[in-house]
Amino acid sequence: MTRRTIKLTIAYDGTGYHGWQVQPGLPTIEGTVTEALGRLTGQQIEITGSSRTDAGVHALAQVAHFHIESPIPTENFAPALSRLLPDDITIVDACEVPNTFNAISDTKSKIYRYTIHTGPTKPVLDIRYCWHRPGELDIPAMQNAAKRLEGTHDFKSLASAADQRTSSVRTILHCSLFKQEDFIYFTVQADGFLYNMVRNIVGTLVEIGRGRWEPEYMDTILAAKDRNAAGPIAPASGLNLIKILYQ
Amino acid sequence: MTRRTIKLTIAYDGTGYHGWQVQPGLPTIEGTVTEALGRLTGQQIEITGSSRTDAGVHALAQVAHFHIESPIPTENFAPALSRLLPDDITIVDACEVPNTFNAISDTKSKIYRYTIHTGPTKPVLDIRYCWHRPGELDIPAMQNAAKRLEGTHDFKSLASAADQRTSSVRTILHCSLFKQEDFIYFTVQADGFLYNMVRNIVGTLVEIGRGRWEPEYMDTILAAKDRNAAGPIAPASGLNLIKILYQ
Repeated sequence: MTRRTIKLTIAYDGTGYHGWQVQPGLPTIEGTVTEALGRLTGQQIEITGSSRTDAGVHALAQVAHFHIESPIPTENFAPALSRLLPDDITIVDACEVPNTFNAISDTKSKIYRYTIHTGPTKPVLDIRYCWHRPGELDIPAMQNAAKRLEGTHDFKSLASAADQRTSSVRTILHCSLFKQEDFIYFTVQADGFLYNMVRNIVGTLVEIGRGRWEPEYMDTILAAKDRNAAGPIAPASGLNLIKILYQ
Repeated sequence: MTRRTIKLTIAYDGTGYHGWQVQPGLPTIEGTVTEALGRLTGQQIEITGSSRTDAGVHALAQVAHFHIESPIPTENFAPALSRLLPDDITIVDACEVPNTFNAISDTKSKIYRYTIHTGPTKPVLDIRYCWHRPGELDIPAMQNAAKRLEGTHDFKSLASAADQRTSSVRTILHCSLFKQEDFIYFTVQADGFLYNMVRNIVGTLVEIGRGRWEPEYMDTILAAKDRNAAGPIAPASGLNLIKILYQ
């Protein structure tokens, strides 16, 4: 039988999971999907996810690939796998791709959204999907600061100190936010993200929004190339991987 | 000290609870709020909730009252209690009302919303707050049938057989639904609801929407005064207590 490569688009509520990546003895998205795939195919198949989302982070469209030698029709994978998955994980789409496809290295850019709720009352039906931070924030100041992140920069100041990647230079294609009622929606698209980069950006923007720093200070933070120069990390719950682009 | 009556407006995600009403050894909304009130005041205070929502049912505005002899400023109750409550319950508002106020008997009408998701893919970030029922439904037929419920009727066919209330006559002031993308939003306002009435109405409307019955059959169901004449009960997750009106 010929070897096929299947590309999965996966949505999940990350609240109950210790992130994407398999960790022995802990529930993870990768582990749960791998187990369902094993039950479906009777084979132990390794899947490769594009983003190693952290504990509590959500996804509307994580992408993963796997190789398989099986006659299972491609259109059956999404419904069959979804039936074997818990309520908080689903396969949005499965399609056959060239065997050269790699969910990680073929990624051209990714889009993340971060949601903040600024109202006084805890939004109980959204609390899993936002950062509840009561109190007004200066939206124009945050928008100004967000804009300064667009372009190619060394984002070392906005990466977790634990990030071990060789280069901390990335290109942010788009970075913006808007307010709707009590919610602030922040969207960022980049060719790649450093560890905790989106949450550190959001935490820093909130410092600017509450008036600790002027928007222009974002330039100083970038120039410092030092994690201590930026604001604190924002909670995982507000973060959602919206889209991964392959062209 | 004079006796005061406090009216609470409470929002909750009911997923993790065995409904509103206290049940020994099980987590309930009433039990959790009562415990928080006890911790706040140092007194054991009984609260009276307007609606005994079922396990898994949500509320944006449940109402409860309690009596207290304490100088705690009224405006402190909502934030102070909320801080003592878990993430899935919050006090939206607390206000002082006349001592004659009763959250149950003073209720003039209640509004419930029910959400159905008809898309093929499980909506992982909404799954706790809807009934995922993939497949097209005939919206005009359901709207026609919903309209037939408006007015004063004997709703015995749409009440749980376990309902022990003397009269099953209620007045539905408003009953409608609309579709937006893959979601159907059903809203019903009545002067009172029988046990499981909203979920039985929704389950019956879905039978009409999928073509099992014509919209006119809703009249036959009402006339039958028999629970077996109506459709199956819809899941609790889609139900949300939106508002309780006291005038």
